[in-house]
Amino acid sequence: MAPILLNCMGNDHNEYIKQQVQVKNPYLDTMEEDILYHFSLSTKTHNLPEMFGDIKFVCVGGSANRMKAFAQFIHQELELPGNPDEIRDICEGTDRYCMYKVGPVLSISHGMGVPSISIMLHELIKLLHHAQCRDVVLFRLGTSGGVGLAPGTVVITEKAVDYSFRPQFEQVVLGKVITRSTELDEGVANELLQYSSELENLPTVIGNTMCTHDFYEGQGRLDGALCSFSHEEKLEYLRKAYEAGVRNIEMESTVFAAMCRVCGLKAAVICVALLNRFDGDQITSSHDVLVEYQQRPQVLVSHFIKKRLGQIA
Amino acid sequence: MAPILLNCMGNDHNEYIKQQVQVKNPYLDTMEEDILYHFSLSTKTHNLPEMFGDIKFVCVGGSANRMKAFAQFIHQELELPGNPDEIRDICEGTDRYCMYKVGPVLSISHGMGVPSISIMLHELIKLLHHAQCRDVVLFRLGTSGGVGLAPGTVVITEKAVDYSFRPQFEQVVLGKVITRSTELDEGVANELLQYSSELENLPTVIGNTMCTHDFYEGQGRLDGALCSFSHEEKLEYLRKAYEAGVRNIEMESTVFAAMCRVCGLKAAVICVALLNRFDGDQITSSHDVLVEYQQRPQVLVSHFIKKRLGQIA
Repeated sequence: MAPILLNCMGNDHNEYIKQQVQVKNPYLDTMEEDILYHFSLSTKTHNLPEMFGDIKFVCVGGSANRMKAFAQFIHQELELPGNPDEIRDICEGTDRYCMYKVGPVLSISHGMGVPSISIMLHELIKLLHHAQCRDVVLFRLGTSGGVGLAPGTVVITEKAVDYSFRPQFEQVVLGKVITRSTELDEGVANELLQYSSELENLPTVIGNTMCTHDFYEGQGRLDGALCSFSHEEKLEYLRKAYEAGVRNIEMESTVFAAMCRVCGLKAAVICVALLNRFDGDQITSSHDVLVEYQQRPQVLVSHFIKKRLGQIA
Repeated sequence: MAPILLNCMGNDHNEYIKQQVQVKNPYLDTMEEDILYHFSLSTKTHNLPEMFGDIKFVCVGGSANRMKAFAQFIHQELELPGNPDEIRDICEGTDRYCMYKVGPVLSISHGMGVPSISIMLHELIKLLHHAQCRDVVLFRLGTSGGVGLAPGTVVITEKAVDYSFRPQFEQVVLGKVITRSTELDEGVANELLQYSSELENLPTVIGNTMCTHDFYEGQGRLDGALCSFSHEEKLEYLRKAYEAGVRNIEMESTVFAAMCRVCGLKAAVICVALLNRFDGDQITSSHDVLVEYQQRPQVLVSHFIKKRLGQIA
């Protein structure tokens, strides 16, 4: 298909291979069919190179509605033909995730938490591999709790860290725990920070992002069904996090960073802080304010994509 | 409200307290408002006792479509008035979870993985507490990979175990790892097993359920984007699991069991095996076969509910 051939110009074989999406599984190419079960797609029933071969940017986020809204937004921003309201969910055969393709941009929801995004990433990386995509950049656009930041601040993740502020992700493989690095692409992060200064109403910082496996006890909230610590102990933990460079807390960044890194994908995490956790636990802003906050990472990533595509100088 | 008063007959105060849903958070009752953010409900904007006070059975499962279908199914089974097609999503203000109320039954989706169900459980347990519910039984109705079982077999969980086959759940609280028991209610499990024998086409076993934090490497699948082990190593891990009493693998049971136990809620996990993992990794059954398999836990739990309500002898 044309989109793939277009990308072959002027590269030697090694560079060509290097820029391809790398699965790390020797069995995959020996399989007669690969069913991407949670996408309701398969290599036998779908022509993945034709459907996805021209993808250059993949944007993922927790909420299905938000990722649909992002797809419609980027459709308008890229001034593509057609009606953005008629955008079709490619994964309509399942309700596990939703997926929209808008020109070279793929927008996918991943649900909440490391396990949920991990299933999506396995199948996404296989999809990009089967589709022979090259030079792909991945963005996670999310919401988060801010640590010492005003609500509405956008955080570009420098390092994704665990509950002990270590830049690592623990993965269980056949009952054994292995550790993977969660380093993200420095170039993409700096580029995003630079672009944020070109945009209005987009307060942005670079900082570490703590990834937890729950929203309440793991993040030191006093308002869950279970709480065994004091207000002062909570603040002490948040202060330690702040001292370790943590500026926001969410629930997916470590596995996102780890898997993208292993597979040679450039990746960035951009989350807006919905509240300052030093001031409280509950998200009390009005619906309209929260909607506007959630658009901020979208505006920043859209700007990045338009720059990369040469649509703005 | 009437539903609460109805439940007070003949119990002394201690027993009344005991049967109430117990949150384990001293701060909760001092809060002026409790926003159940991921349900889009709040104690200020919603009359939770009026909306939910008569709930006796809570059924949760990963997929939003499946839990809507279950709500419509139980509506018919209980022969309730009204059109089951007009059932309304109580959480329509958010797309994180969906929730349907059908008489004394609440049907809620929880997404995939421990973190996703954990957020839902915190807010559900708070909801049941605020609504002053009593004598509530919780069921997780799910899908799973079978270990040495024919596809379509229903597994009632005896113990929910981790990747090392231990009946425990590790929870991070303010950066420290604590361990919680994952024991489930033996009485409810045995009652379910007994009822399964009264139903046709419902092959059912009791066994241990392994809960993992991913679908691919953690469950020994050879078909993920990452795979660093051999077919023989995979089989060896599954054999060890089988020897430890594991009959199926899913991604939510440990935290479900642990949180219900801490809060004094009787709970059971009922999952159908979609495949036998000794035979493969991919889910290759047809859509219609998978739909029928997924109805089996629903049929069993519906039977349980009708028995408890005295609708069948």
